[in-house]
Amino acid sequence: MAWTLARLEALDREDGLSAFRDEFRLPEGVVYLDGNSLGPLPRGTPGRIAAVLEQEWGDGLIRSWNDADWIGLPARVGDQIAGLVGAPAGSVLVADSTSVNLFKLLAAGLALRPERTVILTEDGNFPTDLYVAQGLARHLGDRHTIRNLPPEALVSALRPDVAVLLLTHVNYRTGALHDMAALTGAAHRNGTLVLWDLAHSAGAVPVDLAGCDADFAVGCGYKFLNGGPGAPSFLYVAPRLQAGIRYPITGWLGHAEPFGFHADFWPAAGIGAAAIGTPSILALAALQVGVEIALRAPMRAVREKSCRLGDILIELVAQECPDRQLALATPREAAHRGSQVSFRHPDAYPVMQALIAHGVIGDFRTPDILRFGLTPLTIRYADLWRAVSVLRDVLESGEWRREVHRARRLVT
Amino acid sequence: MAWTLARLEALDREDGLSAFRDEFRLPEGVVYLDGNSLGPLPRGTPGRIAAVLEQEWGDGLIRSWNDADWIGLPARVGDQIAGLVGAPAGSVLVADSTSVNLFKLLAAGLALRPERTVILTEDGNFPTDLYVAQGLARHLGDRHTIRNLPPEALVSALRPDVAVLLLTHVNYRTGALHDMAALTGAAHRNGTLVLWDLAHSAGAVPVDLAGCDADFAVGCGYKFLNGGPGAPSFLYVAPRLQAGIRYPITGWLGHAEPFGFHADFWPAAGIGAAAIGTPSILALAALQVGVEIALRAPMRAVREKSCRLGDILIELVAQECPDRQLALATPREAAHRGSQVSFRHPDAYPVMQALIAHGVIGDFRTPDILRFGLTPLTIRYADLWRAVSVLRDVLESGEWRREVHRARRLVT
Repeated sequence: MAWTLARLEALDREDGLSAFRDEFRLPEGVVYLDGNSLGPLPRGTPGRIAAVLEQEWGDGLIRSWNDADWIGLPARVGDQIAGLVGAPAGSVLVADSTSVNLFKLLAAGLALRPERTVILTEDGNFPTDLYVAQGLARHLGDRHTIRNLPPEALVSALRPDVAVLLLTHVNYRTGALHDMAALTGAAHRNGTLVLWDLAHSAGAVPVDLAGCDADFAVGCGYKFLNGGPGAPSFLYVAPRLQAGIRYPITGWLGHAEPFGFHADFWPAAGIGAAAIGTPSILALAALQVGVEIALRAPMRAVREKSCRLGDILIELVAQECPDRQLALATPREAAHRGSQVSFRHPDAYPVMQALIAHGVIGDFRTPDILRFGLTPLTIRYADLWRAVSVLRDVLESGEWRREVHRARRLVT
Repeated sequence: MAWTLARLEALDREDGLSAFRDEFRLPEGVVYLDGNSLGPLPRGTPGRIAAVLEQEWGDGLIRSWNDADWIGLPARVGDQIAGLVGAPAGSVLVADSTSVNLFKLLAAGLALRPERTVILTEDGNFPTDLYVAQGLARHLGDRHTIRNLPPEALVSALRPDVAVLLLTHVNYRTGALHDMAALTGAAHRNGTLVLWDLAHSAGAVPVDLAGCDADFAVGCGYKFLNGGPGAPSFLYVAPRLQAGIRYPITGWLGHAEPFGFHADFWPAAGIGAAAIGTPSILALAALQVGVEIALRAPMRAVREKSCRLGDILIELVAQECPDRQLALATPREAAHRGSQVSFRHPDAYPVMQALIAHGVIGDFRTPDILRFGLTPLTIRYADLWRAVSVLRDVLESGEWRREVHRARRLVT
């Protein structure tokens, strides 16, 4: 049975998550399919930030480190995020950027496996994951080899020299979802530690770090957690590893007694040792608003809607845009996808520019990917109708061949 | 001639900087002498942040990376800060925390001097500077030695094995100011690179990085730059060093083509290679408001008022609090001080708690330091009268011996 706008509107009426959309400010006339690059603004964020600015900073001044418990905010929001990724309290901390956290944990992992010299990762992993590994290996005197392999070759590449398996749970281009439990188990049987990048997972797909016995993870605050542009990152360290860990960057807020101002570093107990410098309280407070929305949304319902949105988008594109050089780049089976659907098109860049000009905001990813993020808290089923109608019209009209769309540079 | 309130009020009437105070929100009934720990809220910040939230993030969504030039903000604010620290355009970037920037630049410095094995620094340097050096040395396999010496012993310790001299320009406890030109020159004659921590300098004292031929610097956004709690840090790399530098942490925003999503890292030209992950736009925008105020304040006038405030505070304490166990911990001569005055007292902690309870907010620094930050843009000469009157009354009354002041834990 063909998809129609009426059928999609009927799904919206039955959608148990539909009320969440009102918690976000979304501009009129836009279908926003890029919440996996920058999540939209929660309506509660401006008020919270105004209070942090005017009461906590303006009136409280330095006293707010205590009185508003700014000092506890990274661990408090970390504990909240732990509830989204299957981690116990005390295992997640908000700190720094994802890239810096990758560096901290990858270095810590290598230090735990001093006799091993290989970092195993995936072809097509997000660049910063690869770059951090490259920079770290060079920094450590080129003693380590970085092995990039296609996903299907990873398990058989787990040889005794592999110190750390560094993977992104959901691929940023294709949306392919790794089997975290299986890969972590295979790595552990080889004595290899696993560092999971949850950038496209946290708040989007079920994650069970403790259930998978994961070693390390990092994640992003500005995608599905809706923490705002450049929101701080989070990191996870399995409790069983926390006591023996050696972070490469040891800063004053990771000290056991930061306000003792001791000359020598000794680490805080637990996850607190992963803190380095003073965190931005504005950025943390904004992230907390987004996280608290995600905590109220049942993950089972989020995942079900995400899978359904993906299935419908794939079917609708097949229905409305046949013979338009669009090739599905995402696994067809929902169980193997994250919360996005991507298509390849030989002119993906100007096609996406034309879509954006018509108010359908997705993302281009080099070299040929049209990426559509599916954020179940804000996207209506009927939005897919409009998005695919615009895509169809753009492809039929050929307007994406016009210079204006080819020239505009989109940074995302 | 004794200081009187009338004399101080007369100075306020003549103060060419007095109008700047109105640009900040300061709570009623407080004398804030802790702007060197957390600068006060500029009145322009809430409006700027509301616009970033509602227009740029809320309405612009992902498009604001281009349309609001979020992507250029770290370099743009960096160029503004360059104007405060005597650095050329293209040599300063806002990024990460001070501690992370110390790590990046100290590691880069060691990599430029591979045959040398000593990091020379100062006894009593700010702990995070010491901790970062300790963590880095351990991370690099304990090939390096960290030598902590009293300030007067530094020059004679510049031997051929010293790779990097790591110093904080103004000491966080005593307020002592290093001679940047002389120390940098002495280090260079020894082939040693210098990394200056400007946490208590930028916006507070004249800094001439280019004139001193400094190699590296980091600085803090939340002290004299009034960027808000945990504001991002900045870093400086001398243009002559930028091309050959190897940062230990290489992230996607430091890539020459971040949106090419290449598998291999190659660094951006210039200072851009020091970027790592996605920066918080909220935090950057708040910092920019503070920096733009500092840029409008003539540094010569700021320094003159700062020195005068310090001289008066020292004289007023001598006048009002004789025989009260207060010992000046700061150099008596203004030319050798930053923008703070500190006193030692055997019960500094509860004394400071009592002062704060009476609305005079300074800082305690272990073990025995009462620290008073002097921020010429917000402090009136008459404020010193009130501060010292309260100090005198507290010390005379002995109320600081009461349990309430002894027990309260102040985190700053």
